[in-house]
Amino acid sequence: MKADCEFLFGIHAVQEAIESGSELDKIYVRKDYSNPGIKEILSAAFRLNIPIQKVPKEKLNAITGKNHQGIIAYLSAVQYASLDNIISSSYSFGDDPLLLMLDRITDVHNFGAIARTAEGLGFDAIIIPFKGGARLNNEAVQISAGALMHLPVCRVKSLLSTLDYLKKNGIRVVACTEKARDSIYEVEMKGPVCLILGSESDGISHELLAKADDRLNIPMYGKISSYNVSVSMAIAGAELVRQRNS
Amino acid sequence: MKADCEFLFGIHAVQEAIESGSELDKIYVRKDYSNPGIKEILSAAFRLNIPIQKVPKEKLNAITGKNHQGIIAYLSAVQYASLDNIISSSYSFGDDPLLLMLDRITDVHNFGAIARTAEGLGFDAIIIPFKGGARLNNEAVQISAGALMHLPVCRVKSLLSTLDYLKKNGIRVVACTEKARDSIYEVEMKGPVCLILGSESDGISHELLAKADDRLNIPMYGKISSYNVSVSMAIAGAELVRQRNS
Repeated sequence: MKADCEFLFGIHAVQEAIESGSELDKIYVRKDYSNPGIKEILSAAFRLNIPIQKVPKEKLNAITGKNHQGIIAYLSAVQYASLDNIISSSYSFGDDPLLLMLDRITDVHNFGAIARTAEGLGFDAIIIPFKGGARLNNEAVQISAGALMHLPVCRVKSLLSTLDYLKKNGIRVVACTEKARDSIYEVEMKGPVCLILGSESDGISHELLAKADDRLNIPMYGKISSYNVSVSMAIAGAELVRQRNS
Repeated sequence: MKADCEFLFGIHAVQEAIESGSELDKIYVRKDYSNPGIKEILSAAFRLNIPIQKVPKEKLNAITGKNHQGIIAYLSAVQYASLDNIISSSYSFGDDPLLLMLDRITDVHNFGAIARTAEGLGFDAIIIPFKGGARLNNEAVQISAGALMHLPVCRVKSLLSTLDYLKKNGIRVVACTEKARDSIYEVEMKGPVCLILGSESDGISHELLAKADDRLNIPMYGKISSYNVSVSMAIAGAELVRQRNS
């Protein structure tokens, strides 16, 4: 976990952060920028897959009253890990990788809660997209009860092509979705697995669902129509771990 | 669910609410009250087990600027149910009662989240104490995603003597606690069951733990020391339901 300072501003500071390899969550840049220093930063950020958002000057002014020179960068509270390393390391220890992919879970409370449960259940890593996930700020670390200091998070450019990569590496992809016919109790989920969960409003995207090896639901017996996403993760994750230990 | 108005004030209004059988969460009364009307209300409230709290006049003034006459009553957002009725009704349908007891879970977010999961898993009711639980206000109903409109909540005077009552009615009491030796996967939990969960800070009280038939933990494989209480409820509750359906 980094210092409390969650963002930095000004051309020099942001350049310095990128050069020193600091993890950046995203960069806000004034949409009508003209400074060549900013142009340089943006090319470097683009290579590093750091999301860049062009915003009006007023938005930057609202974030800091100080001289931001048209650029503000948000620091991540966690160090990101390489998915490749996680998988190789798991296999090299003779373990079956156990991964969690989160599709468009933007709520920091849900993300933190899920990270806490995933760490407790012994998941190897969480996979999120560079764009469209929750911000991994100090609040997320706090809500995770510190789990995000232990559990690696891998940011990937495309969840869809990551599924291909996982499957090539012998990892079965299990999507947890209300729309499934079979339940998590009806299909055996032993071996290397990546569990996918989607946002509470939209669920998992159609493309990811189509590419998953299994689509499984969590049985519901009441009148409400869905579980909270962090509860779904807990129930499906715990069942997965129960099966591989039994 | 009742109207948005979460409290009422004044001797006449509170008296009316009690006489009409409205569910009251608690009553705040000015500690140096002298009005005989208030005395009457308090005797009725005492008989009905409504928690009464004596507070300085300033506390009442801070709640409403209007003429409260020294008394303010908070309405419940839910209608409470009789535990007796729940159990008899379950047995009369040939079902095994499935109950959830919450010991000192005061956080309204955790309470709402737990209610949502419990309703989804098909629990028959939640048992809470008159004193020392979360307030069942509109926020709790909201967080429960409406589950509190379907899932009965039973308020009891003493959780401890309720355990005796449950056991006499053939219901096995399973306490979910980190301190247990056996896990929820090692002991069969079929039949009529009441699951107990305690607060995140203190867990389940020693007296309740001692009286439970089983004390079971949820296995943890990471570095963090505990699951969130609503996650514990989800994992233990789902396992219970899996076992009784298998």
